[in-house]
Amino acid sequence: MKAETIAVGSELLSTDNIDTNSLYMTGELNGAGWEVRRKTVVGDDIEDIADALRAALNRAELVILSGGLGPTEDDRTRAAAALALGRKTARNVKILEELQRRFAARGFRMNKNNERQADVIDGAEVLDNPFGTAPGQWIEDGGRYVALLPGPPRELRPIFETFVLPKLRAIAGGRRVVSKLFHITEVPESELDARIAPLYTAHTNIEVTVLAGTRHSSVRLSRWIDDGESAADVEDLAAKILAELGSSVFSDSGETLEEAVGGLLRKSGKTLAVAESCTSGILGTCITRVSGSSDYFRGGVLCYSNDAKMKLCGVPPETLAKHGAVSAETAEALAHGVRSTLSSDIGISITGIAGPGGGSAEKPVGLVYFCLTDGINTESRRRVIPGDRESIRERAAHFALSMLRGFLLKLQP
Amino acid sequence: MKAETIAVGSELLSTDNIDTNSLYMTGELNGAGWEVRRKTVVGDDIEDIADALRAALNRAELVILSGGLGPTEDDRTRAAAALALGRKTARNVKILEELQRRFAARGFRMNKNNERQADVIDGAEVLDNPFGTAPGQWIEDGGRYVALLPGPPRELRPIFETFVLPKLRAIAGGRRVVSKLFHITEVPESELDARIAPLYTAHTNIEVTVLAGTRHSSVRLSRWIDDGESAADVEDLAAKILAELGSSVFSDSGETLEEAVGGLLRKSGKTLAVAESCTSGILGTCITRVSGSSDYFRGGVLCYSNDAKMKLCGVPPETLAKHGAVSAETAEALAHGVRSTLSSDIGISITGIAGPGGGSAEKPVGLVYFCLTDGINTESRRRVIPGDRESIRERAAHFALSMLRGFLLKLQP
Repeated sequence: MKAETIAVGSELLSTDNIDTNSLYMTGELNGAGWEVRRKTVVGDDIEDIADALRAALNRAELVILSGGLGPTEDDRTRAAAALALGRKTARNVKILEELQRRFAARGFRMNKNNERQADVIDGAEVLDNPFGTAPGQWIEDGGRYVALLPGPPRELRPIFETFVLPKLRAIAGGRRVVSKLFHITEVPESELDARIAPLYTAHTNIEVTVLAGTRHSSVRLSRWIDDGESAADVEDLAAKILAELGSSVFSDSGETLEEAVGGLLRKSGKTLAVAESCTSGILGTCITRVSGSSDYFRGGVLCYSNDAKMKLCGVPPETLAKHGAVSAETAEALAHGVRSTLSSDIGISITGIAGPGGGSAEKPVGLVYFCLTDGINTESRRRVIPGDRESIRERAAHFALSMLRGFLLKLQP
Repeated sequence: MKAETIAVGSELLSTDNIDTNSLYMTGELNGAGWEVRRKTVVGDDIEDIADALRAALNRAELVILSGGLGPTEDDRTRAAAALALGRKTARNVKILEELQRRFAARGFRMNKNNERQADVIDGAEVLDNPFGTAPGQWIEDGGRYVALLPGPPRELRPIFETFVLPKLRAIAGGRRVVSKLFHITEVPESELDARIAPLYTAHTNIEVTVLAGTRHSSVRLSRWIDDGESAADVEDLAAKILAELGSSVFSDSGETLEEAVGGLLRKSGKTLAVAESCTSGILGTCITRVSGSSDYFRGGVLCYSNDAKMKLCGVPPETLAKHGAVSAETAEALAHGVRSTLSSDIGISITGIAGPGGGSAEKPVGLVYFCLTDGINTESRRRVIPGDRESIRERAAHFALSMLRGFLLKLQP
């Protein structure tokens, strides 16, 4: 069934804010059987809001308005929706008392403006807002549905989940989107599509989206299925894609690469130390984003200067003098050095030229050396990473994580 | 004058993508005299696109469509705009030859689909696209204006800047938005508004927006001014706000905090080393985001484990045993230790509990100690930072930068 969203608020027409509620709602709507066909952003003008709602109701069975339910003069969604639907509003005594109670509990006297948050459109169902003062509203209008929700995500989400989604599922009657999401590393986007296209072209009713990110690629499969219909073909295609891509798929359940690596480190019982030159903290940030990473992460060094490379990782001055800071030899000395300095099982290093300055014909911007060692096995890699300073650094850290994942997978029994 | 944007593409109605071109264009449009009144996102359906364009042209003098100009079956913006405007399209020989030339230069034969990128709406001006194959188009239609631009930001921006903006400035005839943006640190959002409200309430025609971010707050002033009108009141209010907030304002020109700190380090001739426990790389990442930071950044240590604190920063085991890893004493030992280990002028340390686990009544999640020393002066701070693991870490790194900025400001002659 068709849905549209209307985000209300002049701040969403500025350079500083963007409507992100619709991204969250789209995922949930699809899962509940509703396809988002159009998204609109309007300012706080009552005629604009009413006009957008009228037009949307001519196209879709469901229109969700977010924002404009607060207490200020600029909050006009209630009045605009009443106007578009040709209904009146009435001040709801129960909501009013609840508002006064909340203000009193915080030691404030409620000013007059706040009372408008108790205005309810005739025939609307009030949707409690446990995290804010403005409740949502749900209106049925001749086989069409309108939901008014507060703009702040932490208020919108609980109301949407608790009250709106169950209704929408019931209305859609079982038709919904079934989807699968894979995160993939070390396969370039062009190669990725070339490898999986022969698998998915036969499945014309499954939508396949290849998403290229700075750090990794993803493949999303999705298909609308009717109530009682089997989603076996989605599972079947997912299995074929997994078989084709093998261990390049690091996640089929939304897990991040650092979480996948953390799981493998935990399973193997190994500890880790990092030596970061050009990334200078990005790898450490990623690893410790995972709660509980102290179980396997010993720490690291940001060896941005040659001095730091020598002092913290014992890189011999001759190595730096002969091969330079950005070299396979220095990367190797750093990995061995940080492993030894921090008494970890595994040491991993990154040294490269993030640019924009510092490149040469022999050692261009984007050249990065990596090394990984557990004292027995040592792996080295060289990459020339495209992009600007920030993406070279991001991609280098991601590549190191990916290399570490490959190493840990080989340790698996 | 009134403008609307229409972003075309079914991927923009999915859970994975959002229309960010409109944010960029809004800033530029405002500066050129155009107010964005509505933003619409539609899928790749020709009727939907045409319908959205027709409706927008009834409300606004300018409609900018982005996306849907590529070579695939799904790229229908050209045909839809022709439909809405009641015009025909014709295949443009010059564009076609240029397309063939580009494909040949890359060693490919151009397939038939690509030819549709040479379709031009009757009466449209072709806008060259130096970074992609699909050119933009500009159409004047009875005092209304329509621009078709490619979706990828790196293609859209140059075309918008080179061809569209000059036209729009000329049409608007001098009326435009004048704006000022301040970034502010160490002033809580509620206090910020309370302090500047008495200054701006008198200026009813200047729009003042207070933006609260995870890392810092911002204040934006903006006002529409007519051709020849003075923007002196904006300058005046900006000066008053600067005087009120003083050194809490770290940027009035879009500079980031790490850039501001980098500038101060460079000016003072001092070098820096960092010791990060709970942030484990975020501070180092920020500092080295600035190109040329190797001039003042010596490096750092990610002392996530107690062992790393002792080995890399010489924190005495007794300090850790007596006061714990998260304590003022450990923070101090870390700052002195890393300064000494890396022979830097200044050492700065962060140690805290990022959660979600590891907190206690005495040392709750969010408790973070900071220390900064140049060997003569030592400053310590204690903060309990609200939020989840990721925001506690982000805010802690930002606070350390902010503390360092304060320290460096005091060194200024």
